[in-house]
Amino acid sequence: MRKIAVLGIGQTKIDEHWEKSLREIAGDAAFAAMQDAGVEKVDALFVGNMLSPLINGQNQLGAYLADWIGLWKQEAVKIEAACGSGAAAFRAALMAVASGDIESALVVGVEKMTDKAGRDVTAALATAADADYEVEQGISFVGINALVMRRYMHEFGWKHEDFAQFSINAHANAMHNPYARLHEKISVEKFEKSSMVATPINLLDASPIGDGAAAMVIVPADKVMRKPRVVVAASAVATDTIAVHSRKDPMFLQAAYASSKHAYEMAGVTPKDIDVFELHDAFSIMAALSLEASGFAERGQGVKLALDNEISPKGRVPVCTRGGLKARGHPVGATGVYQLVEVVQQLRGECGQTQVADAKIGMAQNIGGSGATILTHILRNDT
Amino acid sequence: MRKIAVLGIGQTKIDEHWEKSLREIAGDAAFAAMQDAGVEKVDALFVGNMLSPLINGQNQLGAYLADWIGLWKQEAVKIEAACGSGAAAFRAALMAVASGDIESALVVGVEKMTDKAGRDVTAALATAADADYEVEQGISFVGINALVMRRYMHEFGWKHEDFAQFSINAHANAMHNPYARLHEKISVEKFEKSSMVATPINLLDASPIGDGAAAMVIVPADKVMRKPRVVVAASAVATDTIAVHSRKDPMFLQAAYASSKHAYEMAGVTPKDIDVFELHDAFSIMAALSLEASGFAERGQGVKLALDNEISPKGRVPVCTRGGLKARGHPVGATGVYQLVEVVQQLRGECGQTQVADAKIGMAQNIGGSGATILTHILRNDT
Repeated sequence: MRKIAVLGIGQTKIDEHWEKSLREIAGDAAFAAMQDAGVEKVDALFVGNMLSPLINGQNQLGAYLADWIGLWKQEAVKIEAACGSGAAAFRAALMAVASGDIESALVVGVEKMTDKAGRDVTAALATAADADYEVEQGISFVGINALVMRRYMHEFGWKHEDFAQFSINAHANAMHNPYARLHEKISVEKFEKSSMVATPINLLDASPIGDGAAAMVIVPADKVMRKPRVVVAASAVATDTIAVHSRKDPMFLQAAYASSKHAYEMAGVTPKDIDVFELHDAFSIMAALSLEASGFAERGQGVKLALDNEISPKGRVPVCTRGGLKARGHPVGATGVYQLVEVVQQLRGECGQTQVADAKIGMAQNIGGSGATILTHILRNDT
Repeated sequence: MRKIAVLGIGQTKIDEHWEKSLREIAGDAAFAAMQDAGVEKVDALFVGNMLSPLINGQNQLGAYLADWIGLWKQEAVKIEAACGSGAAAFRAALMAVASGDIESALVVGVEKMTDKAGRDVTAALATAADADYEVEQGISFVGINALVMRRYMHEFGWKHEDFAQFSINAHANAMHNPYARLHEKISVEKFEKSSMVATPINLLDASPIGDGAAAMVIVPADKVMRKPRVVVAASAVATDTIAVHSRKDPMFLQAAYASSKHAYEMAGVTPKDIDVFELHDAFSIMAALSLEASGFAERGQGVKLALDNEISPKGRVPVCTRGGLKARGHPVGATGVYQLVEVVQQLRGECGQTQVADAKIGMAQNIGGSGATILTHILRNDT
């Protein structure tokens, strides 16, 4: 498999973009990535999106966006893996360029979620769970995560406030990211007093939805003169049962374990070598579970990394350095591309006050459903 | 790019499968393909589907089906390109195996459409068109095709009954395909008398929706001992504007032209070398346009190939040899995989009364939207 590099990145601020259409938001990120890459054309477009059929009445986003961006006649396709759609689109692009069939690809993750009422969005998000055996019972997606969090607290003896640092770190980092949805510092007190969503998950445990797009241009590494050069060191994906109740242990992200293990092997690294880890903190419990399954903490001890403040940009395992899903925002099908773009920013040293010193190796982990599809990518500054 | 072969195929009868769930239908085809391939495991699963979020309340079909099929922990993802989703999933699988990152892939195209009322399905299908500029005007997907057909008849001087042979050939061939949705011979008279859907498209111009799944197992060609061995000679995809009104010439499938041209070059063949052509006759007009843009007929003369009966299994350009979308049926996201499976059946010589004599090279063309995404694949018996 030939080595692939990231030539350009782009992103929009995540917000309620009622003034822009789905295609305009995606186009803004795509044009930014192509400008950053210094290219006017690519061989193919890979779009990550989950909800456009349900929220925007639009399918076939590949052709739809190729048309808007001006990539006429070019290959274009959409990839969907629930909230893991963004990284799945990146991986599809990676495979296509790696095969030698094409020489460049544009990856765009996009979602426009705020045009519908909250209850419609909640119903749409529930399509990530098992329609027949979970959703049919009336449980929402946040409800499923709440069950997992409650069990975790019971099993490992953590209190709700012990999770606060995940959100505090994310919000603190987002203050320095102009593209983040939320620019608001929070405290343990504020965390504990925020309104309940589904016990024990409250508003500050949960990531906000939003409208936004992120994009990347990838090409074979030997074609990149730019320095620093960021290459893809590993790409791995694994799945688990779609329904959480089918798992032997609902508190262990089997697919995070499998995909991160595979990724470490491909890149020839261990968790200790990862300088920055953009994880999928859709809910604070998922941040803890992701750290544990990916080898950064023992079972039940992911929360301790946060409590000990090891997750800040100056800590041992910096996570959510641009705000994470919690504060940068979670436009679901776009999130995986945002994570990868942010890892590239870290490896290029473009993160200002939340820059991780000497970041050479970064990891992004994107999760679809309650751990059903998990993609782990490792990028490296190989300048 | 390494050479890839099709190791196994499987399919279900297309029907109203109220007795089976979405996962059961997909599983039936997947197990059949794996049995035909003689494998119990594959490295990754690629699912083609368009409507499950809208009709079945289910997203993330990759993990959902990997779970059901028993491909635990394996890579799995869904690809969507409207009615071109099936071939798009095949191409994604092809790129992944060709890259060398994985050694085998299962492709499953699945759709379960008959659980909802007709008006809901019509609305869901319209998401293949441009939501902002076509659907917003109240036009349905069949309505868009009707406008194209009317203009074509006016421009090139054809009468409605001149299209009859497309449907008659499809229905005649489907009589010998146990997996086909419709087993009913039709005549020119019946064709002309069928009920109007959107003038000039009547019921027998239009393909029926349905529930069904088709599947394939692909591996590197050098791993296949089986004879006859069917290999992928070309894979190409092109897009056009998503809205038909944006095209300079709405009667020319620019993306069929570009993708078939690219495919011929890759395979080193010309239209004359194609022994069997499984085209995308969602509506009879699309059969004519596909033949013209792919180089089998001059502009405006695709209909003449049908009138002259050159499209039967014994004709010069055999199309829809297993019934086509018209009579085998059109479970939209699955259709592209059915077409490829049928080409494999032809190249293996398994088609009985509709077998094309000495078929060595076959082509499948899968269309998303009204020509917005078009994938052309050429397979070859290289035994």
